Amino acid sequence: MIPYGSLIVYVTPKGRRHVCRLEEGQAWHSRDGWLPAERIAELDFGSVALTSLGVPVLVQEATLEDRLLHVKRLTQVIYPKDIAYICLRLGAGPGRTILEAGCGSGALTLGLSWFCGPTGKVVSHEAREEFLRLARRNLDWAGLGANVELHHRDIAEGFAQSGADALFLDVRTPWDYLVQASAALRPGATLGFLLPTTDQVGELLLGLEQGPFSIPEVCELFIRRWKSVPGRLRPEDRMTAHTGFLVFCRLQAGAEILAGFRSLGTRERKQEAARLNRS
Amino acid sequence: MIPYGSLIVYVTPKGRRHVCRLEEGQAWHSRDGWLPAERIAELDFGSVALTSLGVPVLVQEATLEDRLLHVKRLTQVIYPKDIAYICLRLGAGPGRTILEAGCGSGALTLGLSWFCGPTGKVVSHEAREEFLRLARRNLDWAGLGANVELHHRDIAEGFAQSGADALFLDVRTPWDYLVQASAALRPGATLGFLLPTTDQVGELLLGLEQGPFSIPEVCELFIRRWKSVPGRLRPEDRMTAHTGFLVFCRLQAGAEILAGFRSLGTRERKQEAARLNRS
Amino acid sequence: MIPYGSLIVYVTPKGRRHVCRLEEGQAWHSRDGWLPAERIAELDFGSVALTSLGVPVLVQEATLEDRLLHVKRLTQVIYPKDIAYICLRLGAGPGRTILEAGCGSGALTLGLSWFCGPTGKVVSHEAREEFLRLARRNLDWAGLGANVELHHRDIAEGFAQSGADALFLDVRTPWDYLVQASAALRPGATLGFLLPTTDQVGELLLGLEQGPFSIPEVCELFIRRWKSVPGRLRPEDRMTAHTGFLVFCRLQAGAEILAGFRSLGTRERKQEAARLNRS
Amino acid sequence: MIPYGSLIVYVTPKGRRHVCRLEEGQAWHSRDGWLPAERIAELDFGSVALTSLGVPVLVQEATLEDRLLHVKRLTQVIYPKDIAYICLRLGAGPGRTILEAGCGSGALTLGLSWFCGPTGKVVSHEAREEFLRLARRNLDWAGLGANVELHHRDIAEGFAQSGADALFLDVRTPWDYLVQASAALRPGATLGFLLPTTDQVGELLLGLEQGPFSIPEVCELFIRRWKSVPGRLRPEDRMTAHTGFLVFCRLQAGAEILAGFRSLGTRERKQEAARLNRS
Repeated sequence: MIPYGSLIVYVTPKGRRHVCRLEEGQAWHSRDGWLPAERIAELDFGSVALTSLGVPVLVQEATLEDRLLHVKRLTQVIYPKDIAYICLRLGAGPGRTILEAGCGSGALTLGLSWFCGPTGKVVSHEAREEFLRLARRNLDWAGLGANVELHHRDIAEGFAQSGADALFLDVRTPWDYLVQASAALRPGATLGFLLPTTDQVGELLLGLEQGPFSIPEVCELFIRRWKSVPGRLRPEDRMTAHTGFLVFCRLQAGAEILAGFRSLGTRERKQEAARLNRS
Repeated sequence: MIPYGSLIVYVTPKGRRHVCRLEEGQAWHSRDGWLPAERIAELDFGSVALTSLGVPVLVQEATLEDRLLHVKRLTQVIYPKDIAYICLRLGAGPGRTILEAGCGSGALTLGLSWFCGPTGKVVSHEAREEFLRLARRNLDWAGLGANVELHHRDIAEGFAQSGADALFLDVRTPWDYLVQASAALRPGATLGFLLPTTDQVGELLLGLEQGPFSIPEVCELFIRRWKSVPGRLRPEDRMTAHTGFLVFCRLQAGAEILAGFRSLGTRERKQEAARLNRS
Repeated sequence: MIPYGSLIVYVTPKGRRHVCRLEEGQAWHSRDGWLPAERIAELDFGSVALTSLGVPVLVQEATLEDRLLHVKRLTQVIYPKDIAYICLRLGAGPGRTILEAGCGSGALTLGLSWFCGPTGKVVSHEAREEFLRLARRNLDWAGLGANVELHHRDIAEGFAQSGADALFLDVRTPWDYLVQASAALRPGATLGFLLPTTDQVGELLLGLEQGPFSIPEVCELFIRRWKSVPGRLRPEDRMTAHTGFLVFCRLQAGAEILAGFRSLGTRERKQEAARLNRS
Repeated sequence: MIPYGSLIVYVTPKGRRHVCRLEEGQAWHSRDGWLPAERIAELDFGSVALTSLGVPVLVQEATLEDRLLHVKRLTQVIYPKDIAYICLRLGAGPGRTILEAGCGSGALTLGLSWFCGPTGKVVSHEAREEFLRLARRNLDWAGLGANVELHHRDIAEGFAQSGADALFLDVRTPWDYLVQASAALRPGATLGFLLPTTDQVGELLLGLEQGPFSIPEVCELFIRRWKSVPGRLRPEDRMTAHTGFLVFCRLQAGAEILAGFRSLGTRERKQEAARLNRS
């Protein structure tokens, strides 16, 4: 029995995937025919149903990845491979508070919302109203907006939350908002960035050098898919070669202190250590 | 103020990272000197402390990635890039129940535990006792074992849980356990596999063809790190080129039904659809 | 002054590249207008000419790569990145004799012909007549056939040359022709293979283990292109992810002798060595 | 019979490769024992010989790749995968004249020399004397210097040859030498560059925009090796992730003409075309 309100993937014999919410009294329509919601509600996930045109269609529950891949988009969205790694590096999880700007079409927002759950919180910022509306619509569609605050706000004026556990910036000039970012985070928090060009990465690295940040890590992630034909196993002919450079670093509280210590000689530092550690 | 019980990363000036729990009345010792817990407890995360030898050390909270990278290991552990993507593809998250076998050193177990949180559950199986002990130790060390069941069990006899949301097999011959896996999952659940060789992938694909599974996806993930030097931006000289092939598919309930439909003509299928959809 | 008979690339303002031979009394025609050969013959390579429609077109000499990329094809051709590495590994160069089967559309044949030059020789074999004709046509078009023998021949019956310096097999079941290959090569010669699937690689490795071959090397080559926009440097969005697995090994003369030596004890081998080296 | 003067690879049972020239009256010495030249000269390539210590050693002819991998080096040398692709893109081959600066340890010089052969010529420039000596020594050792001119020269003062077919610059600031490069090449010639950082690539692209060059191509090449174990086929664990960015473009003769045409209207260009093409 599939409950009403479920987000469903209908898989046709040709492998097309249609994502649609199951609403009582309604139906799913496609070029392969239609299916009444009442018929679907009687089935289990993973079952096969026959459309009005006699086409057998597989009825699956939409996974997190189905949701990420089917969001409506106005721009390039972040890919699942990157969303997964960003969420791990930011430590998204139950009870955590994560900041984001801009939200764009909301694909990363959706991933953060999933992992943080009802005890966590995602605070997202977006300056352009049409993106804000789109992100809200995508979150509602995915059934994932309950723990998300969407702010129509230019982050030059600061973030809508302070003391957050982590922050992700997917904006064109992230180096312009490092002061605001630092003010919004608790000490030790992780910052993440996504940038398409190496020129932007270079400029961000220069910016991070000025602030109380740990040495940044820069990386790229690739996914290479294989054709799953036993006996003729081989990689697919083409792959996505670039989605963006990821940069991660952490907010440090003691940057000035560290600088101060470095100006001391070893003997002075030992004396200072003895004084501090005994206190 | 850093609470006792926190898992801490001490970062030395040379960039070495030591992960250690803060225990009241104890101290952290290293070749760079020692630090009393009482001194650390007064600081904030991200602060700098001077060791007994006058070495300035950065005091950070251990992130999820720090934990994954510092588990004690008897074998190759799964990498963060793969753990992140596996957790996303399995839909790990608050309230979800995920099965795993074998747990090995427990790195994936730790990631699943993090994302599923107190309302979710990870049910892990391991046949070799020394790995079970190691996984338990790593989970305790990481402060993440509360939602994990570790079973000393050969999965040939079946899994310790049924109706689970997803399952991950990191065993040498996963094709031997597909019947047991199907019995332990709810319809539509996602199955994931990690395999080092293409020969194993080929054999698994043959096995999956026999069962009620959707067409499997095979992929590899790569992470390429860059040297974060502004003005001289360049990739690192070496990278990890292989950690394993990932295979994902979903459990279908209606495999026999689908086969039955395929044997019917289009007209018969339309009649059958009309009968079913009207009922 | 561009000599008649030159192979020319006409580059249009939109970046389209047309490869065409300059023939006295003829003209080059395109949707951007036409150009009489007499006009082109007066120019230097790298010049700009105006077509009959007033479109400025860049007149370049066709490079080796232009030729490789513009061969007429009935099947997938080998890519320049692979051709380059194969030619280096086989030691193609002036004065060398290289065997090939099958020649397919002749792209690799063309590369081998280029590097071996008038003092070298390429001996190519192809069982299907339409490919043989196509390869001949592509070699003539590229002006590179003079040092190439094209044999209409099933290599199961042996190669048309013996004592060759190297050999390349681009056939579906190369393991079926290892005896013939060994007979056609001088001792120490390099053998190369191109195979699309890992299953074929596995079968070839098994075949090579039976024969007098050195331990094979297996590799893949990738080329990742970047968008050449200063200030916004970034990789292209998509890339070719798979063209084939390359396998290389060398023909050994002393395989049985080696096996014989291994059965002896160290002392006996020393005595034998003393006897042989003094003789 | 192996002729004296041959460059030989001795492969030990543990897979170590020693490259050494066979000189009459001398011997090859290693920790696995020694072998007199007279004994080797009696064998064929690919044979097995027993050293004085009774160790069976495989006697192979040094391939082009063996030579490239065993040059003595003072700095990072260019890898075979890159040398192969550079030689193809530059159109190195019998009868061609190729310019190079700096020659470094001479690995690329060696590759160019091989492919250009006795009818071609490699003109290499190097400002530092110790590199010049090293390159000469490596060319002699590899038996490949006959067609190579090595110039001790700062290319700021121009190249030692004009009208060359292609040019390769492996220097830190190639954008400083574009005028000299243009003067040394025939129209339509290909220019290639190797640069370690994206910042250098960006600066080179800016430089090329100023000159009579076609739109440059930027790429990276990767080689991924596999473990050649049948039944357990898998990629190697680690790979080289970065050797350098390759940039290629072509010298155009008509850059100013092209700019002139662009300032005309379509009708004026058609009239001009009619005038030119009829003349």
